Amino acid sequence: MKKIHIIGLGLLGGSFSLGAKKKIADLTVTGYDIDPQNQKDALTLEIISEVKETPDLDTDLVILATPADTLGDLLIQTLDTIGPNTLVFDVGSTKSRLTKLVANHPNRAQYLAAHPIAGTEYSGPKAALEDLLDRKVMIICELEKTDLHLKEKAYELFDALNLKLRFMDAEEHDRHLAFVSHLSHISSFMLGQTVLQKMADEKNIFDMAGSGFASTVRLAKSSPAMWTPILTENKENILNALDGYIANLSSFREKIAQSDSQALFEEMAEINKIRDILDLGN
Amino acid sequence: MKKIHIIGLGLLGGSFSLGAKKKIADLTVTGYDIDPQNQKDALTLEIISEVKETPDLDTDLVILATPADTLGDLLIQTLDTIGPNTLVFDVGSTKSRLTKLVANHPNRAQYLAAHPIAGTEYSGPKAALEDLLDRKVMIICELEKTDLHLKEKAYELFDALNLKLRFMDAEEHDRHLAFVSHLSHISSFMLGQTVLQKMADEKNIFDMAGSGFASTVRLAKSSPAMWTPILTENKENILNALDGYIANLSSFREKIAQSDSQALFEEMAEINKIRDILDLGN
Repeated sequence: MKKIHIIGLGLLGGSFSLGAKKKIADLTVTGYDIDPQNQKDALTLEIISEVKETPDLDTDLVILATPADTLGDLLIQTLDTIGPNTLVFDVGSTKSRLTKLVANHPNRAQYLAAHPIAGTEYSGPKAALEDLLDRKVMIICELEKTDLHLKEKAYELFDALNLKLRFMDAEEHDRHLAFVSHLSHISSFMLGQTVLQKMADEKNIFDMAGSGFASTVRLAKSSPAMWTPILTENKENILNALDGYIANLSSFREKIAQSDSQALFEEMAEINKIRDILDLGN
Repeated sequence: MKKIHIIGLGLLGGSFSLGAKKKIADLTVTGYDIDPQNQKDALTLEIISEVKETPDLDTDLVILATPADTLGDLLIQTLDTIGPNTLVFDVGSTKSRLTKLVANHPNRAQYLAAHPIAGTEYSGPKAALEDLLDRKVMIICELEKTDLHLKEKAYELFDALNLKLRFMDAEEHDRHLAFVSHLSHISSFMLGQTVLQKMADEKNIFDMAGSGFASTVRLAKSSPAMWTPILTENKENILNALDGYIANLSSFREKIAQSDSQALFEEMAEINKIRDILDLGN
């Protein structure tokens, strides 16, 4: 592994570079970002050594780390023009649309559909962290459609970054992520909105916010440029998750309205089982 | 300050003791918990030096740290029997009902209505931390109804623990807390429930959960015994907050259903303002 090219030099793209450069000797990372300020920051932070719009033909890996709505065109354009020994993978939060889009592309075997379960509520090159990906889960979809030899280049990087690989089909990925990631972001954004609306009447309402509020509202700081296309691309699964969430809230609301302490207690005690499930994962 | 008595030796009661003993020399802390295991644990962890059901008559401070539904009877019984130089305060998450309940009690001046904005998703004496209260906000209600001299005893403790005092009336407290604490707990419990329900069909769904999900669902681990009475006691304010939340979710859902990217982007960008507000508080 000698050369990596990253398009989209934000939180994820930047973290891939910083992590890889720490672990792989003599690695050259070039890249591109549509925002000139991000280009400058990426150079200053040594995320990349050079800005170039397209990868050299002898590049080992191209990483696409731009918002979901730009990935389709970018992936096709990249597959159209990359060298024969280059593998490209994207890190987008939805996988069905992209895999369908390139299903019949002549260079389909040079693409790997990936999604690292890693991030923070911040964005841009300055938010990148060299250990962001360390021991995180990396979901790989349609592995069988990627060239056997080129796959090894991705594995070399993923091993270096200590990523834990999980394999599933793209539809399953999108269905699961709607529940364990996309819904969390919506619940957090709407919680922030609800309290901001209340602030119009109650100026000091945030003075009383503790760590519980901070934790549940953290994702409301997330980037709209990243999240808008995820919400529309994974619409069907997200509406399914959101309808379940709203139904649960409405049913819980009725129990509160009726002061049904027994039902409230039992429901919360049942949900407490999530403790064991989450703790198992750590 | 020589003697503190704590009723309810859980997360908050235990943390008040551990913090106070660290900062105030020659302090004796006694206490009581209805659960014999909690009594044992509190002795082992040196949260208290002795179990006793009622405070000595020369106790400086009595802290009531039991679930909200038990605080009313306990407060009246304590005010009925405490020595003339004892101040009692509770640390419950709702303040209107208690302050109304004791409004005409002959010993009303010996009571301070308080609520520390501190906690974790865990409960019981083993969850107590000596620095849980350090630099946290302590809300005080109806300060003018508490005896001027006895108040000093509470201040001595609050200063020792580095608590930051905020003053407001009980109705305002309950209205605000519904939005910045109680709603967060409900949104988190319901998020946990929605994903647990999905797990019935998709066994491995939690494998894909990242730090964003962990953050938003953390409060779903909270104690049902603590939260059931809060939900029913602050019902009116909580229904108000919850209705606003459900309305926001439903309206956001429609924008997703219509793939209205511009409206979604603008709404999330507006909510992003919460960054500045939250960061100001730190």
